[in-house]
Amino acid sequence: MPYTPPRSSQPPTSIPFELSLSTHPGTSHYRSSLTPVSFLLRAALITPRKLAITHPERGYGFTYEQWAARTLSLAFALRAVPGFKTGDRVAVISPNAPLIADAHYGIPAAGGIITPINIRNTPKEVAYVLEHSGSTIILADHEFKHLVPENPGPGITVVISKDSGGQEADDAYEQFLDRGWVEWQRAEKAQIDQHRQSSKPTAEPKTGWKLIDAPQDEEQPIALCYTSGTTGRPKGVLTNHRGAYLAAVANAFEANITQDSVYLWVLPMFHACGWTFPWAVTASLATHHTIRKVDNKVIWDALVNHGVTHYCGAPTVQIGLTNHPDARKLDRRVNVAVAASAPTANLLAKMESLNLYPVHVYGLTETYGPFTRRYFEPEWAKLDVDARARMMARQGHSYLTSDEVRVVRTESSNDKTTSDLIDVARDGKETGEIVVRGNMTMIGYYNDQAATDKAVMKGWFHTGDLAVRHPGGEIQILDRGKDIIISGGENISSLMVEQELAAHADVLECCVIARPHEKWGERGQAFVVLTEQAKAKLNAEALKRKGSKENVEFVELLKKHCKERMSGFAVPEWFDIVDELPKTSTGKVQKNVLRARFASKL
Amino acid sequence: MPYTPPRSSQPPTSIPFELSLSTHPGTSHYRSSLTPVSFLLRAALITPRKLAITHPERGYGFTYEQWAARTLSLAFALRAVPGFKTGDRVAVISPNAPLIADAHYGIPAAGGIITPINIRNTPKEVAYVLEHSGSTIILADHEFKHLVPENPGPGITVVISKDSGGQEADDAYEQFLDRGWVEWQRAEKAQIDQHRQSSKPTAEPKTGWKLIDAPQDEEQPIALCYTSGTTGRPKGVLTNHRGAYLAAVANAFEANITQDSVYLWVLPMFHACGWTFPWAVTASLATHHTIRKVDNKVIWDALVNHGVTHYCGAPTVQIGLTNHPDARKLDRRVNVAVAASAPTANLLAKMESLNLYPVHVYGLTETYGPFTRRYFEPEWAKLDVDARARMMARQGHSYLTSDEVRVVRTESSNDKTTSDLIDVARDGKETGEIVVRGNMTMIGYYNDQAATDKAVMKGWFHTGDLAVRHPGGEIQILDRGKDIIISGGENISSLMVEQELAAHADVLECCVIARPHEKWGERGQAFVVLTEQAKAKLNAEALKRKGSKENVEFVELLKKHCKERMSGFAVPEWFDIVDELPKTSTGKVQKNVLRARFASKL
Repeated sequence: MPYTPPRSSQPPTSIPFELSLSTHPGTSHYRSSLTPVSFLLRAALITPRKLAITHPERGYGFTYEQWAARTLSLAFALRAVPGFKTGDRVAVISPNAPLIADAHYGIPAAGGIITPINIRNTPKEVAYVLEHSGSTIILADHEFKHLVPENPGPGITVVISKDSGGQEADDAYEQFLDRGWVEWQRAEKAQIDQHRQSSKPTAEPKTGWKLIDAPQDEEQPIALCYTSGTTGRPKGVLTNHRGAYLAAVANAFEANITQDSVYLWVLPMFHACGWTFPWAVTASLATHHTIRKVDNKVIWDALVNHGVTHYCGAPTVQIGLTNHPDARKLDRRVNVAVAASAPTANLLAKMESLNLYPVHVYGLTETYGPFTRRYFEPEWAKLDVDARARMMARQGHSYLTSDEVRVVRTESSNDKTTSDLIDVARDGKETGEIVVRGNMTMIGYYNDQAATDKAVMKGWFHTGDLAVRHPGGEIQILDRGKDIIISGGENISSLMVEQELAAHADVLECCVIARPHEKWGERGQAFVVLTEQAKAKLNAEALKRKGSKENVEFVELLKKHCKERMSGFAVPEWFDIVDELPKTSTGKVQKNVLRARFASKL
Repeated sequence: MPYTPPRSSQPPTSIPFELSLSTHPGTSHYRSSLTPVSFLLRAALITPRKLAITHPERGYGFTYEQWAARTLSLAFALRAVPGFKTGDRVAVISPNAPLIADAHYGIPAAGGIITPINIRNTPKEVAYVLEHSGSTIILADHEFKHLVPENPGPGITVVISKDSGGQEADDAYEQFLDRGWVEWQRAEKAQIDQHRQSSKPTAEPKTGWKLIDAPQDEEQPIALCYTSGTTGRPKGVLTNHRGAYLAAVANAFEANITQDSVYLWVLPMFHACGWTFPWAVTASLATHHTIRKVDNKVIWDALVNHGVTHYCGAPTVQIGLTNHPDARKLDRRVNVAVAASAPTANLLAKMESLNLYPVHVYGLTETYGPFTRRYFEPEWAKLDVDARARMMARQGHSYLTSDEVRVVRTESSNDKTTSDLIDVARDGKETGEIVVRGNMTMIGYYNDQAATDKAVMKGWFHTGDLAVRHPGGEIQILDRGKDIIISGGENISSLMVEQELAAHADVLECCVIARPHEKWGERGQAFVVLTEQAKAKLNAEALKRKGSKENVEFVELLKKHCKERMSGFAVPEWFDIVDELPKTSTGKVQKNVLRARFASKL
């Protein structure tokens, strides 16, 4: 892939600069601060000529030595912005292009806090995040320029990237990097002069990354990620260098990313810092393959022609992907981290037939992305795909570098008389809230002590997710509290009903919500999307028409299917056959939108 | 594999006890101390029924839940020893049996410092280590009882293991575990009583591992490993929980150990805590396969019949292994971490033909074992085995969790006028000393400030190994200082000469030392062990006779081979064809022994 360097900064031909951070003088010889920035420097040292990040849509990419040079230029450019100081927030508004990957190294290296912004937010939402985070610098992709406020405010610097990778002369981001490169050269010159003038013989003057100090405190903040709250204001999740380092190592280890891996950027990097994969993939000396848009044709091209071995994405992404005309069985196993919910039996079978092997993970922005994984158990080999899907649906156990996840009685969180949380029984029945603590847990919500105190009680972060714990210790999410269906005093897990309903051969995906019911208080309302095969074999249009003969018959079939798999009160009362389900930018089904339809009527 | 539980402690049938450590109340919700003990608890929680450690010679093994129970019993047994307190040293004298694996978890869990002792030491050496470490408890295998002093001294507890795994009633170690189990039950009962008596509702009483607190300070010492110094007194290398955790994660990651791996214990666990693999293999949820003795027949049985995927060992181990009659091409790739020196071209070719794939690593006891790895480079694919072996021979780059390794001018270490160390040029020529710092570096030498100050200068640990640094940043060891041959003012690397000489098809292994020479001061003296094929095709007996026709002709061939590959002055002057080379317990050639032969004579 051709690489046109920024005009002023020639790409290094063989690492001419240091590739490790300086250590704070006070540090003991047997300790160094954990920071994910070190992963890039190590990769550039070990395999400088390897393609670190490739961006086919725009026809450019960078080797690890080039990337290490560009990110150092970015760090110096940020530091040169008047008034910039350690701890300042730097907002990034970008799709999965090198810009936002650069930001994951250049901003922390400058001592800043990366604040990635969801490009699917409205200008109003973006304005709120910019104001709440107090970002003083905004790095934005040209395509999302409209999200940057007209008048961002006094003393706020905006840098727009054309995503040209230096191929175009008038790319403001490249010019910004060039200014940083000049600052870097100036800093080196100052070192050299000082060295010349010093009377006593000293070590060579510092060059390159040696001009940057590793954070003296590894608990220094590194990122501020805003949750796309379905309700209320988004909250800013503050994380630190130590946690990002350990989470990235865990992700690299759990996903088994190696030097031979190619990671496809389907998951947005603005989403919880891409679950720390911008650091994990680099730590593994693997290659980043970036795509600006989640386009199934582009993804299949990457899978088939670019040796992709790993990617992450919600089931909804997998559904579109596996049903795309370009879908074909790959000549190698691809490791797919699936979050938000587990793949259904139909989806699992389909994915495996294409050599896409899902690993079910669970996490939140507050936990640096995934922190539990459903580990495979030998016995699964004997199970049919339906049973395997049901086993895989559990959220499982904590990652290598996270503390053990707990499920606790909700009342114990608020019980003022004791400092303890009370675990639910490990019987797969008693419901409680998932709580976690430790190195993969956020510091807190930025400038929102009230929200932090509400989420962190008795030393544990409360996820708001309801779950059971099985005898084997693995957890299984039942529902977000509000997604529970309470019918005639019985608690029904809408997730459980969805899991079972989705096992029907004609069901591509489905969603079940609580709908008011005069007798039972609530009953399940199901929304069903048919598989292509079902649409072909059945009369789809007629099916969608309530009360039509086809509709009535088919709904009866679905109810029968459910009755065989759950207690009667859990079987949805109403079924709507629909073309698609409303989803959030991150692929989660918007149950609140569906609920709204029935809020008023009985 | 049948498992007979300790008589009093029944094996848990489905984890009836907690499998995580308690956190010190003062700890923030987003931090937990890094300790490798946590790996076992996590493994027992995720995959309780999996075989954690297998010991075929004695016909027993333990699942992860059984092992977690036994090690907790060990921790309680240690704590119950009168006078035992946090920070006490517990000596372990054992071959690669479950005893010493238990010790890597039970001792740190009790707050103790594991002090593994080389079973090849003399009773006198052992006595010194016991005294210097001030070990108050000694855990010893029955076969090495003779290494335990008759009268170990007042207040010192000795526990002898029959390595019965609880199958024999009169196994003192098992009885010790049983006492610990009783203490554990007592501690739980105390919790329960306290819980009953407390007026206000509190969380369930603590059980199992919850009775143990994670170290509040992750820099608390965990191990004290004595170096088998070829000269002078052995030194005690003190390491901590944080370093052991990060080193273990790095080893698991670099060796790509997964849930499907089986690790064969060829490397002694008493050697630098088995390079942290007792923790790394468990962190990966893999299986430990222990063998009491490095017996090539037993090893091949394990490789062929027990699905071994990983082991570590010096080249000398590989030589014996690859030449064993049972050697055959395996049906899977086995990952072999090779340290001490790199495999020669002949050995590399032979290993690859058997599906044994060496990874060259380098380290010292002071660095928790390996801390550099020679990373494969794509270009190697094109190279012939000879060239590949030469590339692989370099020590490479630092591990994921270690700081960048440096090679510095030796004079700069002692230069009082500056606090800096001066790096050698990255030209593959300038020689300097290898230094390192960071999370994979020891705290220091136990009770030996002088030695610590000598080794740790200007904030960096000095390895005493001489090396060059190549333009790519990878290091290559030339020699231990004393192994350099200085001939007519020229510095000759004996390792380089050995590497080249060993490339000769008839050479199985060789060693080159400096021998006094009246004209040049020193010249190389080579010792050569022939391959089986060479012995067969040549007249081995005659070859060994100095001056015999066969000997003279063959030595000429070897000199010719050398002349083609090195400057004339580096070609050894003398060649001895020998049956074997003298080696240390850890497989290093004892050059000092060979030197002694020529110390006096010219």
